Amino acid sequence: MADGNRAVVFHGTGNMQVDTVEYPKLVMPNGKKAPHGVILRIVATNICGSDLHIYRGSFPVPEGMRMGHEMTGEVVEVGSDVEFLSEGDLVSVPFNVACGRCRNCRAGRTEVCETTNPDTACAAYGFNLGNWDGGQSEYMFVPYADFQLLRFPDRDQAMEKIRDLALLSDILPTAFHGLMEAGAKPGSTVYIAGAGPVGRCGAAAARLLGASCIIVGDYSKERLDLVRQNGCETIDLSEDVPLTEQIEAILGEPMVDCAVDYVGTEAHGIGSEAENMDPAYAVNQVLDATRAGGATGIIGVYGPDPLASSKAEQEGTYPIDFGKAWIKSPRISAGQAPIMHYNRQLMMSILWDRMPYLSKMLNTKVISLDEVPEAYAAFDAGSDDKLIIDPHGMIKA
Amino acid sequence: MADGNRAVVFHGTGNMQVDTVEYPKLVMPNGKKAPHGVILRIVATNICGSDLHIYRGSFPVPEGMRMGHEMTGEVVEVGSDVEFLSEGDLVSVPFNVACGRCRNCRAGRTEVCETTNPDTACAAYGFNLGNWDGGQSEYMFVPYADFQLLRFPDRDQAMEKIRDLALLSDILPTAFHGLMEAGAKPGSTVYIAGAGPVGRCGAAAARLLGASCIIVGDYSKERLDLVRQNGCETIDLSEDVPLTEQIEAILGEPMVDCAVDYVGTEAHGIGSEAENMDPAYAVNQVLDATRAGGATGIIGVYGPDPLASSKAEQEGTYPIDFGKAWIKSPRISAGQAPIMHYNRQLMMSILWDRMPYLSKMLNTKVISLDEVPEAYAAFDAGSDDKLIIDPHGMIKA
Amino acid sequence: MADGNRAVVFHGTGNMQVDTVEYPKLVMPNGKKAPHGVILRIVATNICGSDLHIYRGSFPVPEGMRMGHEMTGEVVEVGSDVEFLSEGDLVSVPFNVACGRCRNCRAGRTEVCETTNPDTACAAYGFNLGNWDGGQSEYMFVPYADFQLLRFPDRDQAMEKIRDLALLSDILPTAFHGLMEAGAKPGSTVYIAGAGPVGRCGAAAARLLGASCIIVGDYSKERLDLVRQNGCETIDLSEDVPLTEQIEAILGEPMVDCAVDYVGTEAHGIGSEAENMDPAYAVNQVLDATRAGGATGIIGVYGPDPLASSKAEQEGTYPIDFGKAWIKSPRISAGQAPIMHYNRQLMMSILWDRMPYLSKMLNTKVISLDEVPEAYAAFDAGSDDKLIIDPHGMIKA
Amino acid sequence: MADGNRAVVFHGTGNMQVDTVEYPKLVMPNGKKAPHGVILRIVATNICGSDLHIYRGSFPVPEGMRMGHEMTGEVVEVGSDVEFLSEGDLVSVPFNVACGRCRNCRAGRTEVCETTNPDTACAAYGFNLGNWDGGQSEYMFVPYADFQLLRFPDRDQAMEKIRDLALLSDILPTAFHGLMEAGAKPGSTVYIAGAGPVGRCGAAAARLLGASCIIVGDYSKERLDLVRQNGCETIDLSEDVPLTEQIEAILGEPMVDCAVDYVGTEAHGIGSEAENMDPAYAVNQVLDATRAGGATGIIGVYGPDPLASSKAEQEGTYPIDFGKAWIKSPRISAGQAPIMHYNRQLMMSILWDRMPYLSKMLNTKVISLDEVPEAYAAFDAGSDDKLIIDPHGMIKA
Repeated sequence: MADGNRAVVFHGTGNMQVDTVEYPKLVMPNGKKAPHGVILRIVATNICGSDLHIYRGSFPVPEGMRMGHEMTGEVVEVGSDVEFLSEGDLVSVPFNVACGRCRNCRAGRTEVCETTNPDTACAAYGFNLGNWDGGQSEYMFVPYADFQLLRFPDRDQAMEKIRDLALLSDILPTAFHGLMEAGAKPGSTVYIAGAGPVGRCGAAAARLLGASCIIVGDYSKERLDLVRQNGCETIDLSEDVPLTEQIEAILGEPMVDCAVDYVGTEAHGIGSEAENMDPAYAVNQVLDATRAGGATGIIGVYGPDPLASSKAEQEGTYPIDFGKAWIKSPRISAGQAPIMHYNRQLMMSILWDRMPYLSKMLNTKVISLDEVPEAYAAFDAGSDDKLIIDPHGMIKA
Repeated sequence: MADGNRAVVFHGTGNMQVDTVEYPKLVMPNGKKAPHGVILRIVATNICGSDLHIYRGSFPVPEGMRMGHEMTGEVVEVGSDVEFLSEGDLVSVPFNVACGRCRNCRAGRTEVCETTNPDTACAAYGFNLGNWDGGQSEYMFVPYADFQLLRFPDRDQAMEKIRDLALLSDILPTAFHGLMEAGAKPGSTVYIAGAGPVGRCGAAAARLLGASCIIVGDYSKERLDLVRQNGCETIDLSEDVPLTEQIEAILGEPMVDCAVDYVGTEAHGIGSEAENMDPAYAVNQVLDATRAGGATGIIGVYGPDPLASSKAEQEGTYPIDFGKAWIKSPRISAGQAPIMHYNRQLMMSILWDRMPYLSKMLNTKVISLDEVPEAYAAFDAGSDDKLIIDPHGMIKA
Repeated sequence: MADGNRAVVFHGTGNMQVDTVEYPKLVMPNGKKAPHGVILRIVATNICGSDLHIYRGSFPVPEGMRMGHEMTGEVVEVGSDVEFLSEGDLVSVPFNVACGRCRNCRAGRTEVCETTNPDTACAAYGFNLGNWDGGQSEYMFVPYADFQLLRFPDRDQAMEKIRDLALLSDILPTAFHGLMEAGAKPGSTVYIAGAGPVGRCGAAAARLLGASCIIVGDYSKERLDLVRQNGCETIDLSEDVPLTEQIEAILGEPMVDCAVDYVGTEAHGIGSEAENMDPAYAVNQVLDATRAGGATGIIGVYGPDPLASSKAEQEGTYPIDFGKAWIKSPRISAGQAPIMHYNRQLMMSILWDRMPYLSKMLNTKVISLDEVPEAYAAFDAGSDDKLIIDPHGMIKA
Repeated sequence: MADGNRAVVFHGTGNMQVDTVEYPKLVMPNGKKAPHGVILRIVATNICGSDLHIYRGSFPVPEGMRMGHEMTGEVVEVGSDVEFLSEGDLVSVPFNVACGRCRNCRAGRTEVCETTNPDTACAAYGFNLGNWDGGQSEYMFVPYADFQLLRFPDRDQAMEKIRDLALLSDILPTAFHGLMEAGAKPGSTVYIAGAGPVGRCGAAAARLLGASCIIVGDYSKERLDLVRQNGCETIDLSEDVPLTEQIEAILGEPMVDCAVDYVGTEAHGIGSEAENMDPAYAVNQVLDATRAGGATGIIGVYGPDPLASSKAEQEGTYPIDFGKAWIKSPRISAGQAPIMHYNRQLMMSILWDRMPYLSKMLNTKVISLDEVPEAYAAFDAGSDDKLIIDPHGMIKA
């Protein structure tokens, strides 16, 4: 088992390669022993839109970093302080690395763990956030396993639904978090900015929780088709009509109860500005779309943007329509999602078949490790597929 | 229009009759003018399980009282202080009478309005709770109309979905309230005690909100079939197996996250005790079925029970397994539902077709006023239908 | 009684005068009758920091507008649909005008009432928000009185505590709302931006709710003294030390759990930038001061700022450090406070003497109507007093 | 250090002795190694009212059990998987034993940890709940230390305030939890059943959080004096006046917003029934005292009561006035408190001197280990003191 470990490695902007790297050990990035950790054989490891930020260079990471933060795996080795997991257990890995021991983790805020990346109190695998190896690989190390990992109750049942369950490590709970922060509940009207994989998970999650009118805005006809064929309304943002007017044509009112930005800084404008990019476009669109008394979730990634044109934007300062929105009593919630807060309940909904539309909306496609470099390029070019890497050929066709 | 008003009137235990009564005026039960009120032409008015408490004599009301608290109607007259409703508007009437002006109403707790029934701070139409005329009739008076009434946005669309929308005045929001008080959310496991109309609305509402495993317990094969054919699990309580064992056989765990009692004091035991009635059976069953850290909603009606065998029970004191449950950190929430807190959002879910299973689960059946006396008898005998009275023949077959 | 009505009237930037105006009627701004309204004899009516926005011209209003939105009064006339108030009742007027009948009011969001100012769903007395006459006058009209007004249980007791109770119409609940939106609770560490009257109410409210370390930042030694002498820590923002370093020197950590902006667009920078004004200074300071996992309330007023130097800021678009803050999972809540949501509970705390430090921190001073024009000028020049106008000489010295 | 360990040991009903027992090891009750554990030198360990249940025999435990669940200590040895604690750290031990790894702990519900006492999902030190040694001793073992222990930021500062901080292991957070479950917030009116140490902590916590009228009911003049002298109202339950009438005499209304039972099964009646004991007296009193729309917390311990007179009560079934209360929409929350959910915030309030009345209300008294047997007897006889054992003579007089 310990002979080797093939992994997707970042070799510079636009250059992902599959290398043979060291087999993982129960050791922390700082070299200390990790009796609380486990080694996983990876069963499914997805490529995420935020991996593209690395691929494109807008989120800088060191060359040589192992990619991947959306992992599902099988426990193959447990540390001496792992009590509740055993070899053979099939588990989902929340993308946030969280210790379960700091003030924020104790309060359930695992997305801002204070110890796994003390610099910013926000850690993730396969990012430059705490030096944690990613999991687009055959094997990986996960610390604090008893606390972090979500065990599937039945291995065979889980392998049957693995395409859906593989989304639990990040994008389904992330999308759901956006809706929760925006106050979505049964009957809510919802605007979803962006029909990429996370936005489509948002549309699926909005259906799950009983939202009424679910409107998704994007520029890609193919992406919008995926949601429209599965119970949602759509807005083509390349049309030169103000967003609130397009919403009114569908809903009879110009604004929704809950709007979620699933786009982030790589955002485009509406209509005549659809070709323009500006880091504040999406956040301002969702603020505009939210009614007085409603709420807004910001799931798209923001941050100092080294590729931005202005110094202010390079430092993370953006022109926000805050004064315009203030009169509406906006509630804006942003940041990474605490996956552990939602993954168990969403697993239950999947296991009891409450989201039959999920993989249809996601267009999930399983690939091998060798296909990964090409897949990054295709995803970067705008593919609609949600790609799941199957490093050991364990997923049934 | 003012020629007359036919209404269902209580003439003693087991005796409901359709009488011609006075046409309603904009006047309060105490004789004061009600400029805030409206007169409605009733479009749909349902018979509810709690009407049976009156029919059977377990909830005493004066003879001559007009029955009915689940009304949908058309505005035909508005008081001088009604600003936001007009003749012709189609509206749903929340069964709680609420002023919108007292401390509890201001806080959204319309089920405990302090002014519409000062004796107990709990008012309803067609009950002995504040002397409000019921609405199983051609016309009725509703006070505080701007505050209380839920207007359907489009009359024609609403008439198309009237069988579902008619449930918004009571049982659908009531059932939903039970789930909310029990902490239900996407992925929750739920136990529903009772497959009568409210329990079946609970099952439907649990589906709407994305619950995972929804288990309904009852004694009637027909009622259980209605929910099993629409995505729920069932338990036959006449089988002599402890409830937690029956839950474990379905779920793999003996208790659920959320349990709701939709039964109340007219409860039966399990298995060998299925023939026995005891007012504390249902509440103790749902306490038993709730896991440590879960929560319990009590929607079934409790109260001093004049028909109970013991003096304690006649005064509303019941033998509750409170000491048994304490170690599980129970959270028990009981009482009437504040319909206004939920009816708008549930209307939206219906209007956007998010509950296609609702009328199938409810087995709704439309009848005329003349059929009402017989219908009470059939319902009392255990019919599975949810009966909607159509006094003016306005509902399409 | 109906002989006249002296009122503070806006006569252009920097020019407030006391005019004799028409005695109020039970009539809405659009001329319709208001049977739900009352006429109040004003007992106390405060000058607020947001009145200065009008005085300075940064919030444009028509000349001739009656000023004032912080009123306490005695009912002298009731409309035909007022049921629960009587002549002689002493009441507090929430500054938001709210109907109690629209969707937002029903949900308790009276700060975004949809009917009292349909243009923006945000109404207030004495502002250009719905054409409601202000109450810096002898008498005023208040609509929807049963819904809106908070009656003091005992008139004599209330007159004894009128200096504190007069704060219930706006600044005490407003300040409290900011803390609630920032998630403050017993033991929280709190940063309060701005030691004007609202910020000082925030400091007092933070004490009331059991916050641990309460840090107030401002430039005025006198204002900071008022809070430091009453149990709070202070930061002098004119010192050229980064905010987080100053917080760390007090708290041992660089950021707090809850930060509230009580400043708004008329904000200044820190240290070397203390002389500079920029509408985004305060919001960026509180974002900077909030720890990962904490929350931020924005009580200071934002909006399109006609006096701003740039076109973007004139339209309400500000340079917000949103990308810098995103990694901390910020939760930002802004807008006017729904006074009715808090005024009753804060009244109870005052009546039971739980805020003995309140008037000391506020430096309340009672003046006559004739002193008002001068008082505006003094307040604009930076006076530390909270001014309460006593139009009828009813408040004991 | 490892020479011995003196501990309070249960030797049968009414018989507590100080024995020399084995020095603790980093080993679980089932014999497995506990690399996540620490050994503490006990600095303060309190006697609690629930220890009296053991002393009196109403909560059966095996003879030879080490008593004590309210500990504050100094870390003297750490396991190999303890990362964030070091020798010399001063810490508070939450009385619930919690793993931080099960579903309930991950959700913050440490009072129903599923692994530390799998029988009932509820574990505690020094009880028959998971076989955990108590800490009324010189040294003790604590598992899952990184997760469970609350470290005081400064050792010297903590020793200065140790009498208050020693209450963080149980009764102050427990009392606070009762208020939270009863919905208490600034301005709430509160009824506190029982003026024992936990009830007095409840009164202190109600003051901390800004409650308005705080009413405490008990039979002991001495205990009531302690709260009345510190800002609370009192009711003498031996007076033969109904509870709601006594509340009305104080408050002007017969019921409060929030009522908390700090008594449990060893309850007495009111007035003529003051000499009678019945396990349902206290829960029925607080239900009676809670207004419609209010909420009720049950902190007093309930359970199958082996000393009860009836078989039903021995099995934990009690006559509850549930039917009487139902019309008021009661919300009842019971069970042990999740200490970790509150101890950090309450520590902050103590460290910043926000509860100057705390030790006055508690009457805390420090004793040596040798004084313990006698102290149990005095406490059982009704002493008003809150006793803190100081096994090493470390607390200043």
